[in-house]
Amino acid sequence: MEIDTSSLDEYLDEQGLDGYAVYADSDDSTQRYLSGFDAPDPFFTVYTPEETALLTSGLEYGRATKEARGTVDRTSEYDYQSLREAHESGVARAKLQAAFLDAHGVDSIAVPETFPVGAADGLREEGVALAVDSEGVVDDIRAVKTDEEIEHVREATIANEKSMQACEELLDAAEVRNGTLYHEGEPLTSERVKTEIEVTLLEHGCALDETIVACGTDAADPHDRGSGPLEAGQPIIVDIFPRSKETGYHSDMTRTFVKGDASEAVAEWYELTQEAKRAAFEELEAGATGADVHAAVCDVYEAAGYPTLRDDPSTETGYIHSTGHGVGLDVHEAPSLSPRGGELEAGQIVTIEPGLYDPEHGGVRIEDIAVVTEDGYENFTDYPEQLEV
Amino acid sequence: MEIDTSSLDEYLDEQGLDGYAVYADSDDSTQRYLSGFDAPDPFFTVYTPEETALLTSGLEYGRATKEARGTVDRTSEYDYQSLREAHESGVARAKLQAAFLDAHGVDSIAVPETFPVGAADGLREEGVALAVDSEGVVDDIRAVKTDEEIEHVREATIANEKSMQACEELLDAAEVRNGTLYHEGEPLTSERVKTEIEVTLLEHGCALDETIVACGTDAADPHDRGSGPLEAGQPIIVDIFPRSKETGYHSDMTRTFVKGDASEAVAEWYELTQEAKRAAFEELEAGATGADVHAAVCDVYEAAGYPTLRDDPSTETGYIHSTGHGVGLDVHEAPSLSPRGGELEAGQIVTIEPGLYDPEHGGVRIEDIAVVTEDGYENFTDYPEQLEV
Repeated sequence: MEIDTSSLDEYLDEQGLDGYAVYADSDDSTQRYLSGFDAPDPFFTVYTPEETALLTSGLEYGRATKEARGTVDRTSEYDYQSLREAHESGVARAKLQAAFLDAHGVDSIAVPETFPVGAADGLREEGVALAVDSEGVVDDIRAVKTDEEIEHVREATIANEKSMQACEELLDAAEVRNGTLYHEGEPLTSERVKTEIEVTLLEHGCALDETIVACGTDAADPHDRGSGPLEAGQPIIVDIFPRSKETGYHSDMTRTFVKGDASEAVAEWYELTQEAKRAAFEELEAGATGADVHAAVCDVYEAAGYPTLRDDPSTETGYIHSTGHGVGLDVHEAPSLSPRGGELEAGQIVTIEPGLYDPEHGGVRIEDIAVVTEDGYENFTDYPEQLEV
Repeated sequence: MEIDTSSLDEYLDEQGLDGYAVYADSDDSTQRYLSGFDAPDPFFTVYTPEETALLTSGLEYGRATKEARGTVDRTSEYDYQSLREAHESGVARAKLQAAFLDAHGVDSIAVPETFPVGAADGLREEGVALAVDSEGVVDDIRAVKTDEEIEHVREATIANEKSMQACEELLDAAEVRNGTLYHEGEPLTSERVKTEIEVTLLEHGCALDETIVACGTDAADPHDRGSGPLEAGQPIIVDIFPRSKETGYHSDMTRTFVKGDASEAVAEWYELTQEAKRAAFEELEAGATGADVHAAVCDVYEAAGYPTLRDDPSTETGYIHSTGHGVGLDVHEAPSLSPRGGELEAGQIVTIEPGLYDPEHGGVRIEDIAVVTEDGYENFTDYPEQLEV
């Protein structure tokens, strides 16, 4: 995949730095993005306007030469074994990385904020000038997707819809006894529904770490993943964010269901949240800011008399999170649709996910995922919004 | 869970530091271990001999007060909103974290090597004395498991064995046509077997990110995860390392299978690897070193004429990795059973995983997981070793 690193070149030029370095395993998405290499142990990558170079162990070398975006050196080329024998391990690693940078003509580097302080201090000790990139210059490059990346997120969204459907069918088929959902004679739990969702995702090439199936008071906390038997008449928030095993790209979607009849309050929350989502999408286009999109949601909720964090920074009920985030190799990445969200660009992929929360009623959230275009957006999510099942 | 932090107290005392700080989400196992809190966004934790204190967003506050090991402050108590309005985001965060440390009487901290350099430089700028713990003092505490943690790994191992069994049954039931394995009329692929394994794990309460099902030349690279149709007569390495969703603790096991008849070379590798595993376990006990255990494996392979990294640091065939690693909240953690592995302690949980690799024949690896005891070990793995299926 060809990525546009011209803004990184400009940044390095402005700062008077030779290169941009990452030391992490490929769970670090900036590492995976810049190196093009997927490995479970930390390795060192340096980007310069001329080349991208990786430094890996002998164990990873063969695969790296085949898969990585750049050239690959192995640690034995820098006599790492002798360095390890002569020095404490952190010092040996710093000397190794400094020698590698020197061999590639790099005396000064920018690193991401998350670069490990142990390695940073070690490189400084070896005389490498190291500056922290507090602007997130690579995060901003990653935020604007290539056509290939857009396709990856679209594919993960299709798998996500299949798993949401499997979830909805399970809720739909459940019986209600004394207010509790039952499936095949057993109480239907949050855990059982998550397994249904996750098995469906595996069968469609996706992995995932966590899924939210939160009912009643669990649903009042946006980060509560939910547990135990599901209850009829209570909102059940289902938030699914899988990662394609093949490409590493994510999708993200939320729906809220009530088995049986929703209370009047929850029905009102649901309609209001649909309205808030429409208002956010109306703002969404290249040139608008993330703050504009977030403000549109706050306007809807505040006009209806609900608290928001904009209105009251200490509120624990009402609208208590931001409106959306970028999605790519990370499930949460730039840009941010929040009070401080900056100008949006075409090619950015974002979620729109308004919601209302209150321990008294639980929570309601609806979330779609879309790519920003010059004159609006394309919504990837093609899943119905129906509260009662 | 009660953890023994006396060595951390000693370390802080020796270094003249007030506390130990972590800034990460709970995917960082040191964060999860010290804070006792599981959250998807980064939060700040400081440990002192007197208390453990967390600093979280309002969104996480309610759950943190219920689940965390320590006291919880929320960012709004330190007027974070105003800091954000007055300063660039990295500076605002540093001022927030410095104010939190000050409120808890902490002027100087140790941090893990992986602490983000952006946050470290920011705190130093605010006058906090920050030293990097290059000894991995918390890693060493984490390496020695409590009875509760041992139980968690044992439970994950049982789930792991069920998934290995599902895999072996699938290989056993496969037909062979023109040298390729078939299942229900389709070529049986690495991907299909991984799905079988991962669905079984989900049904037993485990998640996992990756599984290795590598056949033939794929298996010659210990980190190749494998892909495509499986071939008869070739070694298939199956390495499964699930994480319990409930506890966060991992297990790890590898078996190697051949559908049909193994070649003479692979059969010899298999017997030799069984012998190497036995030799490693004979060394394993409290007071032995990780280096001793690793050397026992090298002795077996070298005596049989195979290259090892000990013998030839640049070899790409033979025994080309270390003998084992600790397993807990991370699938790879301290201690290390490798040339530089230090003295082992009772309560450490480790893998023993010798193997041989060569593109000509593929690879063979066998891996068990065990807890070190005063006079030996207890092997958790109760799964047969049978090469041909």
